[in-house]
Order: sequence, then C-alpha cells, then structure tokens
Amino acid sequence: MEKDTVKIGLLGVGTIGGGVVALLKRNGIRINETINVNLVLGRVVDRDLSRLKTLGLSEDILATEASQVLDDPEIDIIIELIGGVEPARSYITRALENGKYVVTANKDLMATHGAELLALAREKNLNIFYEASVGGGIPLIRPLKHSLVADRVQRVIGIVNGTTNYIFTRMARDNLSFQEALSEAQKSGFAEADPTNDIAGLDAAYKLVILAGLVFGKKASLDQVYVQGIGGVTSEDIAYAREIGYVIKLLAIGEQMPEGLALRVHPTLVPQDHPLAAVWNEFNAICVEGEAVGQIMFYGRGAGAMPTATAVLADVAEAARCIKNQAAYGVIEKIAPETTYVPIGELSTRFYLRFLAEDRPGVFAVLANAFGDEQVSLDMVIQKRCVNNTAEIVLVTHMVREDAFQRAMDRVLSLPVIKPNPSIIRLLS
Amino acid sequence: MEKDTVKIGLLGVGTIGGGVVALLKRNGIRINETINVNLVLGRVVDRDLSRLKTLGLSEDILATEASQVLDDPEIDIIIELIGGVEPARSYITRALENGKYVVTANKDLMATHGAELLALAREKNLNIFYEASVGGGIPLIRPLKHSLVADRVQRVIGIVNGTTNYIFTRMARDNLSFQEALSEAQKSGFAEADPTNDIAGLDAAYKLVILAGLVFGKKASLDQVYVQGIGGVTSEDIAYAREIGYVIKLLAIGEQMPEGLALRVHPTLVPQDHPLAAVWNEFNAICVEGEAVGQIMFYGRGAGAMPTATAVLADVAEAARCIKNQAAYGVIEKIAPETTYVPIGELSTRFYLRFLAEDRPGVFAVLANAFGDEQVSLDMVIQKRCVNNTAEIVLVTHMVREDAFQRAMDRVLSLPVIKPNPSIIRLLS
Repeated sequence: MEKDTVKIGLLGVGTIGGGVVALLKRNGIRINETINVNLVLGRVVDRDLSRLKTLGLSEDILATEASQVLDDPEIDIIIELIGGVEPARSYITRALENGKYVVTANKDLMATHGAELLALAREKNLNIFYEASVGGGIPLIRPLKHSLVADRVQRVIGIVNGTTNYIFTRMARDNLSFQEALSEAQKSGFAEADPTNDIAGLDAAYKLVILAGLVFGKKASLDQVYVQGIGGVTSEDIAYAREIGYVIKLLAIGEQMPEGLALRVHPTLVPQDHPLAAVWNEFNAICVEGEAVGQIMFYGRGAGAMPTATAVLADVAEAARCIKNQAAYGVIEKIAPETTYVPIGELSTRFYLRFLAEDRPGVFAVLANAFGDEQVSLDMVIQKRCVNNTAEIVLVTHMVREDAFQRAMDRVLSLPVIKPNPSIIRLLS
Repeated sequence: MEKDTVKIGLLGVGTIGGGVVALLKRNGIRINETINVNLVLGRVVDRDLSRLKTLGLSEDILATEASQVLDDPEIDIIIELIGGVEPARSYITRALENGKYVVTANKDLMATHGAELLALAREKNLNIFYEASVGGGIPLIRPLKHSLVADRVQRVIGIVNGTTNYIFTRMARDNLSFQEALSEAQKSGFAEADPTNDIAGLDAAYKLVILAGLVFGKKASLDQVYVQGIGGVTSEDIAYAREIGYVIKLLAIGEQMPEGLALRVHPTLVPQDHPLAAVWNEFNAICVEGEAVGQIMFYGRGAGAMPTATAVLADVAEAARCIKNQAAYGVIEKIAPETTYVPIGELSTRFYLRFLAEDRPGVFAVLANAFGDEQVSLDMVIQKRCVNNTAEIVLVTHMVREDAFQRAMDRVLSLPVIKPNPSIIRLLS
C-alpha cells in the first residue's frame, strides 16, 4: 500500500520558512518527480497574519494557530521553524503523538531535548529529521547517520559558527580589531544585533551537543561542554599565529576517549595545512575522524535562508519516502544517557601563551622554573618587541595536561615581573 | 512483512574486498544494531582459492564460481568488487534479473554502463548503490542523491584522483620534478606500477561521467569529456602559480550551461583561498555549486582498503533497509541519454601561459598584436629570467573563448622569436 500524496504543515515563516516556501515553489515539481511522491503544502501557520500574506500562497491554507496543523489528521509531516525550546517542544511532542513525521531546524531544542524526542519518535514508529539544525545547508546529519554506519567515529572537529569565523577572517585578512570585525559582521548580516551566544561559544556548544548525540550516541548537556568564547583573542594573537604557521578558529571538538567523552568549544590554533584552516568568512566545516574512513570533511554555508531551506526540504523528502513506503526507514539515533565525561582539566593539549613581562635579567629563568616544576616543556619561545621596559613574550608548549598547565600559569602570574591577563589559546593536535 | 536477515554475496576479495570482510568482522554487530537487520555474509567468491582462505572465514561460504552467488536464491545483495567492465557487467545484470540488490565500487562499469544498469534496477524495483566508485570513503554519492533533492546543481568541481594530487603536492612542497614525484608516489603506494590512466586524466574523466549522471541526470560518455593529463606541468609552473596566488590541481569540472553540459578534466590554477586549494597529498575533494545551497564541499580519502570499505558497507546497509522494508527506497537516478554537450572550444576561461622567447626588442609588441587581434586581453605579464639571450615570459589572460585563444596561440607559435612547447594551463574561475 503506497501513499502517493503527502501533506506538509509548516510552522513559522521567518527567514528559513520563507526560503522553504520559495524553494518549494521553484523546485517542487522536480522534487516530486525525483521522490515519486506528490508533496502538498497543506497548511502554513504563523502568528503574524500579515507576514503569511506576503508569501503569495492561497489564503485557505494560511492559519495563525499551531493546532490547525498539529491536530489536522490530513497533515503527514510538520516542519517546525519557530525556534526556541517552548512551545516548539510541546508542538513536536503533540505532532508525534498525532502520528506525524517531524522536520526541524531547531538547534536549541535538539540540543536540550533531542534524545527524548527521538525516543518518542522511535516509540511511535515515526522519525524526526534535523539536518538544518547544524551546518545550515551542508549535508551533514544524513551522511553521518547513514554513511558512517560501518565505522567508529573517534573525533569530530567543527567550525560550526559562521559569525565567529567571519570575525576571525576579517581580523586575519584585513587586520581589523575584534570590535571592528564584529561591527562589520553585523553590517554584513553575519552577526545578530545581540551576538552574545555566538561570541561566547554557546551556539557552537549547542551544535556540538547535537553532533555528539549523533556520532557517539551519547546524550550530553551544555554543562558537560567546556566553553570559551572568542572575546579574548586579539589581532596580535592572530599575527603571531600566522608567523608560526597557524590560523585561529573557534572549534567545537568532541572526542571519544578511553575515559569517556570530552566536549569542548574554544578558540584554537589550527595548523595552516589542516583542511579546517582553509575555511573562511561565514563558511562552516565539520571534520570527522573515523577509525576506518580516516579524516573526512563537510564544508558549506552554515546559515542563510536558501541554503538552510535545501536541508529542510531534503528532510521533508526523506520523511515523504518513509510515509509513501509506510516504513520507518530504520535508522533513528539511539542516544544513551549514561556516559562519563572527561573534564577539561584531564585533557592534554598544547598551549599558545602571550603575555607581557618586565624587561629585566632573570625573567626567563623564573618562567622556566615555574613551567619546569609542573613538567610543562616549551616548544617555542618568541620575544621581539620591547617597549617601555616591557617585553612581549610568546610561548608554545608541548603536550601537557590542562591542570598542570593551569598550575604553572597560576605560579607564573603570581610573579611580580609578569603582567596580568595573558592570551592563552589551545592548539589543535 | 519485514525481513530480518539479509544475506550478502561478495564477488572479489582483492584489496577492497579484504577491507570489507575485515570491517564486517570488526563492526558487524554494531551495524546490525543500528539498522535493525541481521546481515550475514552468505558467500564469498574469488577465482583465487588461496586468497579466499587467508580471510579467516568459514570454509563452507567460500566459492570460486560467480554463479554460486549470482544464482543462489538465498543471496539478497551482491557486492561486486572484481572491477573492469566485463564480466562485472554481465554479473550485475544477472544479479538484478535474479532479484538481488547490487553494491559496487566499479568506476569503469558505472561510467560506461551505469545509466542502463540503473534503468534495469528501476525496472526490477531494485537498486544499485555505488558510493565507493567515486571518492573512496568520502560520503558523496548518497548526499548528492538525497540532500540536494530540492536544489539545482550548476557546477561540480572535483579533485578525484589521489595519484595526481599526491604528485602535485610533492612537486609544490618538496620542489620535486614530475618524474621524481611520480617515483615517490609509486614507492608510497599512491601510484600504480602503470599510472597511465591517472596521469593522463582518464581515471578522473570516468569519475566525472558518473558525477554528471548523478547531479545533472545526464548520460555522458568518455568522448564527451575534454581530457588533458598532468604530464606537461613543470616545477616552474608550480612556482609561478604560487607567486601569483594559485596552486595547480588536476580538476574534473562538470558544468550545466544554457547551451548544454560541459565536461572537462585538466590541470588548473586554483586560487589559494578556494577550499580545493587546501586539498593535499592523496586526499580527494568534490565541490558542488547549487543554485540555493551555494558552494559545498566533501573531502576525504579517495582510495584505500578501509576507507573504501566503509562506503561499500554503508551501501550494503542501505540496500538491507530497502529489503527489510520491502520498499524500493524511492530514489533511483534517472539518467537521460539526450543532451547537448558544449565542446571545449566554445567555453570561456582564463589561461596561464609560460614560454621562452628570444630576448630582443619588439618581441612584446609582436605578442601583443597576436593576442590583440583575437581579442585576448592580458591580466598579468611576468618576465624575469633571461639566460643565453632567451627570456622566460609568463602571461595570464582575462576570460577568453578557448577557440579564440587557440587561434592566438597558433599565431604566437608561428613567430620565429617564440620557442615551441609552451606551458598552457587554465585557471579556475
């Protein structure tokens, strides 16, 4: 028994919702031909009726109440594009209970309640597709779910926030300060009026939680992610990084270690010949390291109405195929709640460190002792400028446990010859 | 009605086949859990019995005749890893006629007979999966088939041959000559003993034909692809390219133009900030430009037993899901035979040109006239070395039609002051 017509209900017609309607108009016939299903936009809901009316859709499918989609037995798939945790969570729960497939771009919701919603979908023999929640238009969730089924992922490393990548690009290429680059990002539409969540690394942390559920099958929450934003990175750091063969990126890193899962978001020095180092402007990229497949990377636009709409409609097409075949296509993430998380202090990494010190004899010896006592060994030392009796010193360590490094730093910063507020940035290794 | 056990027949246990057996042993239980199907290796066929015996498999599933897999009604999926056009083509045809799903890594076969085999699969309500035929372990075919269903691809640009990319990498990084780099590639296992198909661009052309069928739905053959190998590229070209901000890569480019489809493989100057410029060593990457999604890129290892085995087993998992649900999953490429192909002469591109000329007054004027008469305008002129009365001249043109440029070159090369055998390399734009 095949079902040849599949009805979609769309909740929320902001930027992405508008893109979905436009793309469906433009390519709907071709999509139907490809998947051999007749997709029909059955109802479109937004609280703002005037916004609905600008879409050029037939008036009789417009509605202002979510229940007109959620409780309509004719609707097979809901596309949730209202964002935020509530009421999106209640809506999706209700849709699943009413037997509907769900497509969502909702990063906050999938990061905080994805595991429980996917479990409900599994129980109902339905599915939730969320390709657009990470990496915008980049085909990522689907390939990770299906193409690596035979492999074990060891590490995932992503540039998953376009705003911060754009800011670092402008700082690196045009020698702008952080503040100047942020203003440019806002003017160009690559940063929101309130960019706090992006700058502080929270947006990236949410996406990392979603990726961890997907590739490691482990349910994490935001407080299991070590998060450091990009606010402390200066033009000087970017210039020094370049000099020693690195570029600075905000990375989200998830790693399956023998002791547990380690999740962290922080600015990172990336070697210039790493594929992530070539990701510029507002682009995103996610690098996955699998035991068998080795290193693979997915690259593209992490935001924008039309790129994101392609991801939403690819999910709709997949849901429609499931409905047509009356077959729950067989892959729903099982996300286990119980896992050990490795705190940042137990990880080992290399550090870049830049600070000011009084320019007088014996400073290096004092430094060397503080580091040596904590077994922190140095790979690189640069001291060039010396202004007003103050020396700028850049150090790069070998691999060292985070807690040992922090102890060494406490000691270094307690020395009266060392000025406070050093730049400390981890290296990718 | 669900089918919970799916039997696999494996044809050919060379490098990739060995990888498939090993990976299935290592991760089989996890794969079964993920797809909720019990995959069983039902029979393994190779002409070489001694090779079969090294696999550590139960003797009663080993066989030396393909018919023992193809005609066994218990086998649900065949994995064809024998390579080459015949007998693989006959085997796959027979498998489809016997109601089996097919997974193949066979690039030559899919490039030459993919369209007809996919049509037969469609007729039989089965499918052929060929993720491993292009880009080895990179998830590529599946995302292009499913994730861009709502978009129109305008151009696909790939580094799809690991051998040539490794050679260019060694030439660029270690200043090796072409011959030295080729020897290194052979020593490191990144080039075959007879590397002709790689060096001449034929391997890349086959892969481009497969990609064109997939993303443009157009059946092409090798003679519709303009192919130029990498043999003519010298260390000098690579050094000049670097100086003007480019790296040289062998690109496979497929483009949907208003006049038809243009397919070509040639060494290309790629701008240093293009994501393909950061693809080094034996890695592959495929850049896809979609109308809505913009630029996306897939990166990873294009060869190797284990990476390729992950792609083969992801295909097996997809076939198993189809069988379990007794549903032809609904997406089989429709590849139309009739299409207009745009010959290389009608394309417009920018050219890099390096040649030797007698160092005497008036040479530039003569050159300028030859180019000017064909409306070839120059973007860049470099002349540095002048040895034994001979000047080395490097020119970069603006966009120009290929045929006009060739006419200009014919004229330039007929000048007695110009030495024969210039380097001519196209730019990516």
